[in-house]
Amino acid sequence: MRVGLIGLGTVGAALARQLIDGQEFLKHQTGGNPLTLAAVSARSQKPRPGLDLTGVPFVADPLAIARDPQIDLVVELVGGHDGIAKQVVEAALQAGKLVVTANKALLAHHGSDLLALASQQGKILAFEAAVAGAIPVIKVLHEGLAANRLHRVVGILNGTCNYLLTQMQAGAGSFDSVLAAAQQAGYAEADPSTDIDGHDSAHKLAILSALAFGHPMALQAVACCGIRAVTAQDITYAAELGYHIKLLAIAERGDDGLVRQRVQPCLLPRQHPLAGVDNVTNAVQLKANLAGQILLEGPGAGGDATASAVLADLVDIAVGRRQPISVASTQPSAVVADKPLEKLAGRCYWRLQVVDQPGVLAAVAAVLARHQISIESLLQRPSQANDLPDNRPDTQAFPNGNVPVVLVTHQALEPALQAAADELAKLPQLHQPPLRLRIEDNLA
Amino acid sequence: MRVGLIGLGTVGAALARQLIDGQEFLKHQTGGNPLTLAAVSARSQKPRPGLDLTGVPFVADPLAIARDPQIDLVVELVGGHDGIAKQVVEAALQAGKLVVTANKALLAHHGSDLLALASQQGKILAFEAAVAGAIPVIKVLHEGLAANRLHRVVGILNGTCNYLLTQMQAGAGSFDSVLAAAQQAGYAEADPSTDIDGHDSAHKLAILSALAFGHPMALQAVACCGIRAVTAQDITYAAELGYHIKLLAIAERGDDGLVRQRVQPCLLPRQHPLAGVDNVTNAVQLKANLAGQILLEGPGAGGDATASAVLADLVDIAVGRRQPISVASTQPSAVVADKPLEKLAGRCYWRLQVVDQPGVLAAVAAVLARHQISIESLLQRPSQANDLPDNRPDTQAFPNGNVPVVLVTHQALEPALQAAADELAKLPQLHQPPLRLRIEDNLA
Repeated sequence: MRVGLIGLGTVGAALARQLIDGQEFLKHQTGGNPLTLAAVSARSQKPRPGLDLTGVPFVADPLAIARDPQIDLVVELVGGHDGIAKQVVEAALQAGKLVVTANKALLAHHGSDLLALASQQGKILAFEAAVAGAIPVIKVLHEGLAANRLHRVVGILNGTCNYLLTQMQAGAGSFDSVLAAAQQAGYAEADPSTDIDGHDSAHKLAILSALAFGHPMALQAVACCGIRAVTAQDITYAAELGYHIKLLAIAERGDDGLVRQRVQPCLLPRQHPLAGVDNVTNAVQLKANLAGQILLEGPGAGGDATASAVLADLVDIAVGRRQPISVASTQPSAVVADKPLEKLAGRCYWRLQVVDQPGVLAAVAAVLARHQISIESLLQRPSQANDLPDNRPDTQAFPNGNVPVVLVTHQALEPALQAAADELAKLPQLHQPPLRLRIEDNLA
Repeated sequence: MRVGLIGLGTVGAALARQLIDGQEFLKHQTGGNPLTLAAVSARSQKPRPGLDLTGVPFVADPLAIARDPQIDLVVELVGGHDGIAKQVVEAALQAGKLVVTANKALLAHHGSDLLALASQQGKILAFEAAVAGAIPVIKVLHEGLAANRLHRVVGILNGTCNYLLTQMQAGAGSFDSVLAAAQQAGYAEADPSTDIDGHDSAHKLAILSALAFGHPMALQAVACCGIRAVTAQDITYAAELGYHIKLLAIAERGDDGLVRQRVQPCLLPRQHPLAGVDNVTNAVQLKANLAGQILLEGPGAGGDATASAVLADLVDIAVGRRQPISVASTQPSAVVADKPLEKLAGRCYWRLQVVDQPGVLAAVAAVLARHQISIESLLQRPSQANDLPDNRPDTQAFPNGNVPVVLVTHQALEPALQAAADELAKLPQLHQPPLRLRIEDNLA
């Protein structure tokens, strides 16, 4: 099988290294069908450390590889949901080639169309590497649990966010300082917005949900909130309540049959298996009717880890044990809720930054009462805030006159909670809109 | 695809129920190839709750199903490594049929021969359900990590043992009392020896190791020790040291290239991901060169959970995405160590039941010193034992004159440790042979 590789970033270089240095091993693993790196394309032809591409043609135009009749399979590792990545995948499928990609953005935006195109061509578009790096979650969902009806998929799918939250939990500093350190260490991009605003998790969730429940990819129906507003102090308060804060990607089929997809920072009980998944590790918990709860955990990113997933696709295809995946573009077996939060109920954690003066709490309580939201507990009152010891993380972030009110509210519906939050944001006593995080007690 | 089912125990009945009630769903999942339950055989024709076999021929002789030209695929759920299970699988393969089995004992004893037979016939022998119930660990190892070289496989593979250990840890009583309760609850067999003596874990480890490292199944080379000697008091002492006691199944490739397989109750650091795997849950941690550490966790037994794995094999085969598995009977890519413990070094936890008199500790220390084993810490001295509060679990099991000495020894080689243990067992001051458990600090 002659492979054309497009993209020589961290993953592309790791993959090329395996295809070259691991040639004999891979030939053994495919039962004798060699995987030959027959052409590469990348933005730059600069040398990559530890990678000797002597003898492998470098092709400046990636579309030339996608259309080259000598190439059987194209690996797309460019990234991005439009532009060259999309052109390459479409051109390769149209030319009747097999395609392997790690591009979650592309799949989340155009996956159903691209899978339909692959299906028309009788070719395979494989994407194990698009979600959760080295963890074979696509294979487990699509093949290992093939006889199951899925109830729920919960994932920690973004290593950057999980790293930042873990670091804050470990006391490494404020959001801004752990982000700067993560950027230094290569765990966060220079522009981290795709990760920390939740979009990357939303892309991956859209893919998992489509596979789990059998509906067309529906990125537009993922409620998405990132972790920018979460402070180290929130993590401390959550810990006092017995919770860890995690950015969770959740797709769940309700009693009404609708699938609800959401990405949100949540309070997860300390003893939940996902609560202990730290740093850049990813994890997915699958709840299914026969198999029960299955947890998968492993490296979510990195050159070798992601190359492992790309190679698994290549070996599967070379061995002949892969069929085109359909995500039900014609006969969907599930329908996605356009408004995933509308019927969601739950307890919530709230932090409000208020002016330190009498009557603040009364004003806040009045707004909540107006929306039928009852307060379960008050963790922090304005008048106590100044009593915090100096060594408490982030205390310094709340100087006099800007103190946190932290409380937990009982079960209430999201629309009421959101309306209350909007109204609270307008209170003159609030310095900024309230932070509200869902408490996920029912993911066991 | 016409399926003949042999065995109608918990798993067989759950499978039959899915094949009948879930017929339409499974037809959808196979892309239109129906899985038809065409014949069943079992020891008794008594009715099974919730299972209506009207219209499914009951065949008294299981071998008749194995040889029936109308049957395409035989599911063997009889169990046992010899007798009818082996006859049925051999006969079915010889008759050119596909075979799916959940029988770990059969595979561990005869897997290489049976897979070779399947290979000769160009047929598939599938066994996802043989290890770790609902967790698709065979698929993950063999397909998902196909491009990896495995370094280590660590599993909690026996739900009964894990349940007993978890219950003791939760303070539910002594070994005998939690075993009796587990038998009552259906978590332990009337004769629990296959589980609690480690044989079931050894069977599963032999299968995983062969797949992970590419060697013929080598059950005879699994060092196997069960949990009979572990008391609730050991679990308490281990907790004081920061460890949980788990029955671990470990297969590891050493620097010398040899694969060492062992099943042992071990002290595992509290923060290790496997340390929190409780009750009947199973888990497997895979360490691989590209993918890094992958953890899989889920229900290890139960009708529906095991049926989920059997059905995954059936769907894979019906879809045409399964190839015969070879476990390298002709060209092994790894060699198994006959004496897996010989070169193993490690720290150990020891509990010695001694007579409560002066000089005992000196005698014990002298034996250890003679074998170059140094004591790292002494957790419990004879003279302190009588000071234990009465509500301490198992205290009552050690009346006056039979008190525990609990200590931790520094790194030492297994042969020296075993020689010391043998010598200690001969000391007149000991009431019974010492309990020695390995401390597994290096499984991160």
